[in-house]
Amino acid sequence: MKKLYLIGMGPGGHQYLTIQAIETLKQVDVFFMLEKEGRGKEDLLRMRQDILSHYLGDTGYRVVTATSPARRMDAAGYKEGVQSWHDEKRALFEGLIADELADGQNGALLLWGDPSLYDQTVSLIADLTARSDGALDFEIIPGITSVQVLTARHKIPLNRVGENITITTGRHVETCDPAEIDNAVVMLDYNASFQRYTGQNMDIYWGGYLGCPDEVLVAGPVDDVLADLLQTKSEVRDAKGWLMDIYLLRRRKSGEI
Amino acid sequence: MKKLYLIGMGPGGHQYLTIQAIETLKQVDVFFMLEKEGRGKEDLLRMRQDILSHYLGDTGYRVVTATSPARRMDAAGYKEGVQSWHDEKRALFEGLIADELADGQNGALLLWGDPSLYDQTVSLIADLTARSDGALDFEIIPGITSVQVLTARHKIPLNRVGENITITTGRHVETCDPAEIDNAVVMLDYNASFQRYTGQNMDIYWGGYLGCPDEVLVAGPVDDVLADLLQTKSEVRDAKGWLMDIYLLRRRKSGEI
Ligand SMILES: C[S@@+](CC[C@H](N)C(=O)[O-])C[C@H]1O[C@@H](n2cnc3c(N)ncnc32)[C@H](O)[C@@H]1O
Ligand SMILES: C[S@@+](CC[C@H](N)C(=O)[O-])C[C@H]1O[C@@H](n2cnc3c(N)ncnc32)[C@H](O)[C@@H]1O
Repeated sequence: MKKLYLIGMGPGGHQYLTIQAIETLKQVDVFFMLEKEGRGKEDLLRMRQDILSHYLGDTGYRVVTATSPARRMDAAGYKEGVQSWHDEKRALFEGLIADELADGQNGALLLWGDPSLYDQTVSLIADLTARSDGALDFEIIPGITSVQVLTARHKIPLNRVGENITITTGRHVETCDPAEIDNAVVMLDYNASFQRYTGQNMDIYWGGYLGCPDEVLVAGPVDDVLADLLQTKSEVRDAKGWLMDIYLLRRRKSGEI
Repeated sequence: MKKLYLIGMGPGGHQYLTIQAIETLKQVDVFFMLEKEGRGKEDLLRMRQDILSHYLGDTGYRVVTATSPARRMDAAGYKEGVQSWHDEKRALFEGLIADELADGQNGALLLWGDPSLYDQTVSLIADLTARSDGALDFEIIPGITSVQVLTARHKIPLNRVGENITITTGRHVETCDPAEIDNAVVMLDYNASFQRYTGQNMDIYWGGYLGCPDEVLVAGPVDDVLADLLQTKSEVRDAKGWLMDIYLLRRRKSGEI
């Protein structure tokens, strides 16, 4: 039997790890670090390695790094593109588990934020586990999400009284009916889709590199902060070479509590 | 200047605290423990006190307990009821901060799960801070939510590829058009509203007392597990005198990834 821990590492800094995550780190023989090719790759790898040296020192565990397949945007269609990307990723995991993890050992992946939130590793590993005929098991250790750091930094609740919470993607808010959005957290936005939400009595609470040393925040009515936010985004992205950002769009209501 | 930390304690057990939360605990002079009257009150207080003795020992800090006002369901209307409940709670906080926290001291509230998720303490304290003319400041420390423990225990992602996530209340799913629900986490459900979702190709992933010693899980197609789930709920509630539960409703799709 081999065991794999999917450990939520929080949004970057080592202070976001839970005691449960730290206790789990101590039981791991092999850490798999999979990162996509791209300009943020070294930074993201370094943050993971910092967590390991901070909590475990520099010896007593093995680190296996591999390049995670990139999603090809030019595939036959969105669904098909995602499917073939998944197949590639699963094959990669399958190979790593076969070659780099011995029977009786514990492997782990440090997953950014929480493993359940817009991260397909859980599905892939569940799939491999189901196919393994009892040879593989896995466990998920929750972590602080970027959503929670966003609201903490802006000192706001995620919802007003009784209100629904939506967590969605840039891909969705870019094309949906704007009237549909009352209170939504937007992740994975590569096109600054908040630009569609001007003139609608909307506030935005935006954060880049949350929980990381270069954290940056912008908040206010979309109409008022739009220009500033676009400029901030392009400045920080130019300076660092990559950007990870998230925001909450909230429609103002009369008689708000 | 007085400072108040709103610390996310996670869903019960002390292993869910982050390092950031533990470091913050160490800077606190006075912990305010507000609990509603009711049969779970002693258990919920004890879990908070366990966290303090586990990480701080039994001395060096002060604990102030108070009974949190209950929401009166018989008020003029829903909005008005919530409003007067808020006013009462704010007055209570205001009094506690004035009487029990000295200038230059740090106070804290250990908030269940994450402070931003269906908890109005953030709004109340933001309000008091705004009115304090610089005499009060506050900071939010994120915590693991019950949502994350739910998905971790069931070993599922919170969303399928590209899908929106909805977090909502029992009050909403009890009355909304069932067709509107594709993938929703339901909290604060006092009426087992998942009963409305039979015959609709829906799966449920349910958890009670997540992250606590009596944790209990049920999962499967709503149609198949309904009777079992209703019985489990009533048994555990009878045994303990109170129940805290949460669930994910997910509509099966053809060609699912
Ligand atoms: C593939 S998703 C993974 C989310 C992760 N599982 C979590 O719990 O935060 C990546 C997206 O999360 C958001 N994100 C993650 N970490 C972030 C951070 N530190 N600052 C801002 N946004 C972040 C961004 O919207 C990014 O596009
Ligand atoms: C007032 S809300 C507070 C939620 C909290 N801030 C959090 O992050 O989980 C209370 C609701 O959260 C859910 N909940 C909180 N803790 C739970 C637990 N340990 N097990 C199951 N459900 C829980 C239940 O749906 C409950 O009605």
